[in-house]
Amino acid sequence: MKRISKRSQTVGDLGEFGLIKEICASIPHAGDDCAVLPSADRKKCLLYTCDPVVEGVHFVAATPPRQIGWKAMARNLSDIAAMGGQPRWAVVSIGLRPATSVRWVKEIYAGLHAAARKFNCQIVGGDTTHVKHEQFVVVALIGDVVKSRIALRSGARVGDSVFVTGTLGGSLHGKHLTFTPRVNEARWLVGHFPVHAMIDLTDGLSNDLQRLRESSRPGIGFEIFAAEVPIARAARGRLTAALNDGEDFELLFTIDPRYVTALRRSWAHDFRLKLTEIGRVVQSRGAITLIGNDAIQRPLTPAGYDHFTNR
Amino acid sequence: MKRISKRSQTVGDLGEFGLIKEICASIPHAGDDCAVLPSADRKKCLLYTCDPVVEGVHFVAATPPRQIGWKAMARNLSDIAAMGGQPRWAVVSIGLRPATSVRWVKEIYAGLHAAARKFNCQIVGGDTTHVKHEQFVVVALIGDVVKSRIALRSGARVGDSVFVTGTLGGSLHGKHLTFTPRVNEARWLVGHFPVHAMIDLTDGLSNDLQRLRESSRPGIGFEIFAAEVPIARAARGRLTAALNDGEDFELLFTIDPRYVTALRRSWAHDFRLKLTEIGRVVQSRGAITLIGNDAIQRPLTPAGYDHFTNR
Repeated sequence: MKRISKRSQTVGDLGEFGLIKEICASIPHAGDDCAVLPSADRKKCLLYTCDPVVEGVHFVAATPPRQIGWKAMARNLSDIAAMGGQPRWAVVSIGLRPATSVRWVKEIYAGLHAAARKFNCQIVGGDTTHVKHEQFVVVALIGDVVKSRIALRSGARVGDSVFVTGTLGGSLHGKHLTFTPRVNEARWLVGHFPVHAMIDLTDGLSNDLQRLRESSRPGIGFEIFAAEVPIARAARGRLTAALNDGEDFELLFTIDPRYVTALRRSWAHDFRLKLTEIGRVVQSRGAITLIGNDAIQRPLTPAGYDHFTNR
Repeated sequence: MKRISKRSQTVGDLGEFGLIKEICASIPHAGDDCAVLPSADRKKCLLYTCDPVVEGVHFVAATPPRQIGWKAMARNLSDIAAMGGQPRWAVVSIGLRPATSVRWVKEIYAGLHAAARKFNCQIVGGDTTHVKHEQFVVVALIGDVVKSRIALRSGARVGDSVFVTGTLGGSLHGKHLTFTPRVNEARWLVGHFPVHAMIDLTDGLSNDLQRLRESSRPGIGFEIFAAEVPIARAARGRLTAALNDGEDFELLFTIDPRYVTALRRSWAHDFRLKLTEIGRVVQSRGAITLIGNDAIQRPLTPAGYDHFTNR
C-alpha cells in the first residue's frame, strides 16, 4: 500500500466512511441515521436527514424517472424509519441538464410524491439548478418520534438477539429502485417492543454491523449465524451477496431475547414480511464474527460498497 | 420563436421559473422563500428550505473552498431571513470527485460552519456521494419565526413604500461568494415594524419584483424610481446591472408609508447598512414600472438570470 501524506490525501484515498468520520468530527451528535433535534413538544424529538441520488451512482440515464424519484424519497424515508420515526415534510433540490424533457422531470416528481404520500409525508418545497453533466436529486426530510421510543445505533446490549427484516443481497438487480422503506414496521417495532439499537441496511450487512458496533459501548461485538442470514432471490443463493451488497433498505435491530417469542408471534400476526433472528450481541472486544454451518468462526469484515473507492 | 410541442418540451425551453411553476403545481402552499410548517409551539412556525450550489454554475473549480461553503450556507440563511426567521439546524449533502483533496472538503466545511455559527445555526448531519464531473453542495435548513411576525411574499398593499437593503448589481465580481445574509436585519425589521411583504434578492431586482407581484393580490403593481435604486460599486454605475444582476442577497420589502420616518431613524441607529426607499406599491393591473429621471415611465420587465436558458 502506497503511503499517502496527509497533506495530499484525496477523498478516494480516505474512502466514504473515512471521509464521513473526518467531517463528523466537526458535527456534534453525528453518527445516527438522522440528526435528533429538540421539539417544542417535550414528549417528542424532531428527526432530520438528507440523502442525494446522483446519475451514474444511484441510477443510470435509462432508469425510469418515476423510479428515480421513488428511490430519492424512499432512501430518506428509510433513514427516518431506522430511528422509529414518522416522516413529515420533505424539500427537494434537483439538478437538471437544459436538454432534459419536462416530462422526465414531472415523472421524477410523480415518484417523489408517490413515495412520500404512501407514508403520510408531504413535499413542501425545494429548488432547481442546471448542471452540465450528472443530474441529481437531493431530498431532505423532517420527521418526528416519541422520545421514549427513539431507536439509536448505540443501544445494543450484550445478550441481545439480532434481527433483520426481509431478505438481503442482489438489490442492484432491481429492488434498489422500487423498495418499500420499512417505516410502518419500524414504528410498530418501537411502539410494541423495547428495541435497543436499530439501523437501516444501506451499505451491506457487514458494513452496517460495523457501524452499529462503532456506535456501541466498547467491547460490544456480534455473532452472526451464516445459516440464518436470509438470502434474497436476486442474490441467487450467494451468502457473500447477502452479507456485502448495498441498498437492501431493510431494518437491522437488537432486542432483549426475552421478547423474542412475543415479537415473532405479534409480527407474524401484523406483517407478511419475513423477520429473521440472525445472531446475537456478545462481549468480544468489538469483533464481528460469522459462525459458519461447520461451526467455524470467521471474522466478518466490512466489504460493502464504498462510494469513493468503489471497493 | 420555434413552436415546441408540449410532449418534447425541455427544461431549457421552459426556463427555470416556468419549470418551478410546473413543479409547484404539485406542492401545496409553494411560492415563498421557505416552506411554512406548523410548530408544536403554537406561537411559532417552522421554516424549511433547501438550495444547491453546483460547480460551473454557482462557483468555479478555482473558487476558494471556504467561500464555496460559506455561499452554500449563506444562500439558505438568506431564505430564512427573507421570512423574518431565525435559522436553527442545517443538513448538508455533498457530491465529490474521488480525486478531490480531503483538505478541500475540510475547507468547504469550515466555510459552512463559519456562516452557520455567525447566525447561531448548527450543522447537525448530512451525507456524501461521489460524482464524476460537477461537484455540488446542497444545504437544507430549518428555522423558526414567531407566527405574528412572519413576512410572506404575498402581503404587499397599495400605497406601501418599497425598500431595499444594501446596494445592488455586480455581485458576480465577488460579493456572491462572501455576502452576509441579512438575518439580523430581517429579524429586527419584523420585530419592530409591520412588514407587509418581503423577499431576498437572488435573481435580480426586476425578476424578484415580478415574483412579489405574482404572489400579491390581483392588480397590485410597483413603481420603481430609477434615480433611487442603490447601485453597488461593483456595478460601475450601470443601472441595468443593479436592476438585473442576480445574487445580491439583499432584502426587498414593503411597509405602510406612515412608518417610513420611524424606520429610517431606528435603522440608522442600529445598522450601518444602507436602506433605500426605491418605490411604491400601486394599483396598476399588475404592471411593474420604472420611472426614469426624465419622469418617463417604462415597463420594468424581468431580465435577471435564468439557470436553464442563460438569459
